[in-house]
Amino acid sequence: MKIAVDAMGGDNAPQAIIAGVEQARDQYSDLEFQLYGDPAKVKPLIKNSERLTMVATTEEITMGEEPVRAIRKKKDSSIVRAAKAVKDGEAEAFFSAGNTGAVLAAGIFIVGRIKGIDRPGLTSVLPITKPGSARHSFVYLDTGANAESKEHNLVQYGFLGKFYAENVLGVKNPRIALLNNGAEEDKGDKLHKAVWQDLNDEADLNFVGNIESGDLLYGKADVVVSDGWTANAALKATEGTAKMMLTLIKHGILNGGLRAKLGYLLLKPVFHQIGKQMSTSTYGGAVLLGLKAPVVKTHGSSDATAVTNTIAQIHTMLTSGVIEKTVEFFGQASSVDKDDKNE
Amino acid sequence: MKIAVDAMGGDNAPQAIIAGVEQARDQYSDLEFQLYGDPAKVKPLIKNSERLTMVATTEEITMGEEPVRAIRKKKDSSIVRAAKAVKDGEAEAFFSAGNTGAVLAAGIFIVGRIKGIDRPGLTSVLPITKPGSARHSFVYLDTGANAESKEHNLVQYGFLGKFYAENVLGVKNPRIALLNNGAEEDKGDKLHKAVWQDLNDEADLNFVGNIESGDLLYGKADVVVSDGWTANAALKATEGTAKMMLTLIKHGILNGGLRAKLGYLLLKPVFHQIGKQMSTSTYGGAVLLGLKAPVVKTHGSSDATAVTNTIAQIHTMLTSGVIEKTVEFFGQASSVDKDDKNE
Repeated sequence: MKIAVDAMGGDNAPQAIIAGVEQARDQYSDLEFQLYGDPAKVKPLIKNSERLTMVATTEEITMGEEPVRAIRKKKDSSIVRAAKAVKDGEAEAFFSAGNTGAVLAAGIFIVGRIKGIDRPGLTSVLPITKPGSARHSFVYLDTGANAESKEHNLVQYGFLGKFYAENVLGVKNPRIALLNNGAEEDKGDKLHKAVWQDLNDEADLNFVGNIESGDLLYGKADVVVSDGWTANAALKATEGTAKMMLTLIKHGILNGGLRAKLGYLLLKPVFHQIGKQMSTSTYGGAVLLGLKAPVVKTHGSSDATAVTNTIAQIHTMLTSGVIEKTVEFFGQASSVDKDDKNE
Repeated sequence: MKIAVDAMGGDNAPQAIIAGVEQARDQYSDLEFQLYGDPAKVKPLIKNSERLTMVATTEEITMGEEPVRAIRKKKDSSIVRAAKAVKDGEAEAFFSAGNTGAVLAAGIFIVGRIKGIDRPGLTSVLPITKPGSARHSFVYLDTGANAESKEHNLVQYGFLGKFYAENVLGVKNPRIALLNNGAEEDKGDKLHKAVWQDLNDEADLNFVGNIESGDLLYGKADVVVSDGWTANAALKATEGTAKMMLTLIKHGILNGGLRAKLGYLLLKPVFHQIGKQMSTSTYGGAVLLGLKAPVVKTHGSSDATAVTNTIAQIHTMLTSGVIEKTVEFFGQASSVDKDDKNE
């Protein structure tokens, strides 16, 4: 199985990318990598070129660039070339730590959507941190690929999330919830009320009702479906608050004198565990679900370990056949829709 | 100055309400209180009836009830009667810890909106927790009075928030930001792009641009304006995450043996300070801004101290003349609008 890697994207590229890829290569004997980037910068970093192929590119899409314009203009960028390799069947998945918008645009316009899906959803795996919870993570989409979503997009996210939870996380009959502004079934605006009804009507979905953003980490669902706007706001608030709490503790310790510093030393294992649980890199990258191949974007700040974890996630996606199962389902669903229309 | 108090609303009512009111009464010699509720339950709790008047009501609106129906049907409930006292000029402000929806409905339909404002905004004061920040709180609206908002509603929130920050928090020339899905000016859906332009065009607003939900607690603005849907999702995610972080620390300490428990003892002042900073009750209740009088709802779980803090906030609202200034501004704004139309 071949993964096309954008070697140039991310704050720590190409160092962290290459180191992470080499770790993953050593871990998975069935993986091969195509590294897209500037050979002058990438080649000296490679320790062992086993199952690594360098593909020279001459352009780079930077963090601030307008995504759609960038992928149209910079045809020889590492992002566009790696995505094109997947489209042309030269690789089976695309990995990047670069400009999120450009990766999404390359996924949609170059790799291409699964038939029957018009709005792929950006999907993150987030921690369930409630002590004693049976499960430790859940699937959350759309975290921001679309600023405006329609009713049928959210229903499709239910299925995309279900297949991902089943095949990649190994959850049987995953509980699907809808992010809304209240837990009761009559909550929400027109869109969310309609989606509640649709999800509840789907016999193939184990729909457990609405969930509020304050309960995201509490393990009430295995898949949380949302429009991209709301999920994005709730996700950023969750990440920002977790980071702020750790900053406050750190600041309190630094200003608390010897007593606080001693307390910190004693509690270090506890803080370490919490930091790990709350860290996005523990759970891999964000996947643009609804595409013909795995397109996975990891945090720009990813280190080598985060890169390796994300490639492990791609490996599971490839071996589990999650994409093929999704293609098959939506292929059938679209023909059913067509039949309905012909009646 | 008289405050009409719903003595029956909240998880700890009427005990916490009466205890909090008595503390506030002892603190502010210019305040009088009308206590609406069941005298059999309320009267035995009163230690000193100075400046407290009991008004007997026979009905109660409970937490689960559908708000608008409840205020229409239960005319002799403590919420409806207290709101009516404000409408009739018998009291100058309304305080409750009860059913949020019913308090908002009573505010809009009984106390009444300021001329020129069609959608009052629920307003919270939230902490700025960034270490070293010059300011310690900011004004955030609409946190959920409206699930759907229009362009001009958000611009009005800018002014409502500005007047509140200036008069109640004492901020000079408050910095106004728009909650959006990115910091750059071209971010957001159609609504948010239009509002960005409107706020930027207002010469009377010190507009500082977009803010993302992950940056809420970082002190980048004194007033954060948002549609009710997004602000509500971000607020609940912030509160839920802060609570979860404290739970995780507690759980880690309880399961970390003697070492962790000793560490906790040493760090107790740090945790105490963080808990206080993140606690909603430190910053008073939620105000429905855009009404003819202060209508303030404190958390259902409020204790006596939270009740006292919220009454202190109402006292500042009354003495600062924030409502009068708001009425005057929107009165002039509406006549200007009319002039525009006649041209």
